[in-house]
Amino acid sequence: MIQTYAAKQAGQPLEPFEYDPGALQPDEVEIDVLHCGLCHSDVSIVNNDWGITQFPVVPGHEVVGRIGKKGEAVRNLEVGQHVGLGWHAGFCGACGYCATGDHNLCAAPQETIVGHHGGFADKVRARAHSVVPLPDGLDFTAVGPLFCGGITVFNPFMQFGIEPTDRVGVIGIGGLGHLALQFASKWGCEVTAFTSDTAKEKEAKAMGAHHVIHSRDPKAVEAAAGSFDLIISTVNVKLDWNLYVNALKPRGRLHFVGATLEPLDLQIFPLLIGQRSVSGSPVGSPATIATMLEFCKRHNILPVVEHFKFSQVNDAIKKLKQGNVRYRAVLSH
Amino acid sequence: MIQTYAAKQAGQPLEPFEYDPGALQPDEVEIDVLHCGLCHSDVSIVNNDWGITQFPVVPGHEVVGRIGKKGEAVRNLEVGQHVGLGWHAGFCGACGYCATGDHNLCAAPQETIVGHHGGFADKVRARAHSVVPLPDGLDFTAVGPLFCGGITVFNPFMQFGIEPTDRVGVIGIGGLGHLALQFASKWGCEVTAFTSDTAKEKEAKAMGAHHVIHSRDPKAVEAAAGSFDLIISTVNVKLDWNLYVNALKPRGRLHFVGATLEPLDLQIFPLLIGQRSVSGSPVGSPATIATMLEFCKRHNILPVVEHFKFSQVNDAIKKLKQGNVRYRAVLSH
Repeated sequence: MIQTYAAKQAGQPLEPFEYDPGALQPDEVEIDVLHCGLCHSDVSIVNNDWGITQFPVVPGHEVVGRIGKKGEAVRNLEVGQHVGLGWHAGFCGACGYCATGDHNLCAAPQETIVGHHGGFADKVRARAHSVVPLPDGLDFTAVGPLFCGGITVFNPFMQFGIEPTDRVGVIGIGGLGHLALQFASKWGCEVTAFTSDTAKEKEAKAMGAHHVIHSRDPKAVEAAAGSFDLIISTVNVKLDWNLYVNALKPRGRLHFVGATLEPLDLQIFPLLIGQRSVSGSPVGSPATIATMLEFCKRHNILPVVEHFKFSQVNDAIKKLKQGNVRYRAVLSH
Repeated sequence: MIQTYAAKQAGQPLEPFEYDPGALQPDEVEIDVLHCGLCHSDVSIVNNDWGITQFPVVPGHEVVGRIGKKGEAVRNLEVGQHVGLGWHAGFCGACGYCATGDHNLCAAPQETIVGHHGGFADKVRARAHSVVPLPDGLDFTAVGPLFCGGITVFNPFMQFGIEPTDRVGVIGIGGLGHLALQFASKWGCEVTAFTSDTAKEKEAKAMGAHHVIHSRDPKAVEAAAGSFDLIISTVNVKLDWNLYVNALKPRGRLHFVGATLEPLDLQIFPLLIGQRSVSGSPVGSPATIATMLEFCKRHNILPVVEHFKFSQVNDAIKKLKQGNVRYRAVLSH
């Protein structure tokens, strides 16, 4: 039996829950969980905000652990090896995206916490091709958030060929944004943090921001017109997006990794005149996660985390909902 | 004196108007106009729809002619040479975009019909770096529309690295769209025309479309979900853009070269999940125009045009406004 914390109904506190995972499949591994980050998406899934939750749900998709068991067909992982598991616990392995290394765009992926029990548990299972070995020398108590929050903001740098000579803006300095600042800075870029919380200015600069702009001050954002090659938005609140499009250089990109339910209401002319793009992306592929981990190790990039015991999971969720976590919560046994 | 057709006030018919162009500048040429396409933008400028018109305005920015005079500093053109002139009659020559061949993104360009008299005239002047030689063997009576309508839809193929293996959709089969179909087809792509005018189906297929979908039939557009690498919208009416985003493959791009004044009201999740982009672009650089002309010559791509005399310019505008031009009007002396 696997011991977990699960929500039985939408919006309810998590409570102990055990389940029988059945026989280990030949292409699966069972991970002994050591640590697991708490992501906003865990809360959205617990609340069934996206209408896709299957209850009881065991959240947790920023898992760090050790391989406890492996199926007979698993060649890429060894028992005892330290690994991480993110949003995906499996891919179809048959579509064109899987065939070309873009597993994160797989047409029929297994999501770790949708129709599958996640990492707020003593063990979690996943298909081996979705599990990424952790390089030695990383602080395993803090790296969990790289597997969802981190890869979500690292992936655009690789997907869109961001250059060290580029100017990059990051909207929202939270779980994702504080990592985006570190990535952009170590990537060699000129970095601007957009935040509505000016108390974060000093920390944003310590994480690599050269400039800090108040994200809700129209005049300040307007003054940055034509400045950015890439602006990554990590927030889930509506801002005046046309102001941010205007802050892009010609050929610039406003890229969403956080989603609001309100539509974007974008004017077309500023896109057209400056050949600008607006886009979004989900997490990255296992290969991109591995690249990110190497980059983090080389540059001492680490999530800034607050530690909780798994038994305190509801306290961690409460603090996250209040917006008071700096900058990511990690649960440990 | 230069003899033209000009609008003296917003929305008025064009009437004969002459102006003194003054001394020819060292970096300028004077083109003896032979033919000039009529573009929707000419009508928008005459109507001052964009609030940027300077009256009296001489429209015409799809010029085909011969160099009549050249300034002493002009090295790239010779008197007597056949040339074309499009939306830009000059570039600043000083910004980073000019310095790297992206003149169409120049920070301070001279537009042919904004603060400058255009090609509905016996002569038109332009800075030589914005004027492109016409290769021999093109039908000069028909190529004018390539210099705005054509380059506007050709440019995205080069900017975004469209591959012959890609699937391309074109929304709107008019002055721009009928050229986009030809480009996409000769580029090697699988081509779908989206049109609300099913009477155009046969012609769209003759221009290279493999499939035709009714652009305002939600079920038909929905049935194409996940199909396209690139959809180019040439229309200036609002469609259900989220349906078109949904018609993109992962990594696909919905690209606007026609503009509506209504905002785009895009949902973020479909962008995010599929790493999709929405973008726009203006015309192309002179170098890209030259590349397009070679491509047209190689593949016998030509605008399908209706011919008018310059003296019939108001009739041509009337027919354009009625949506009855198939597919572009060209005025000739």
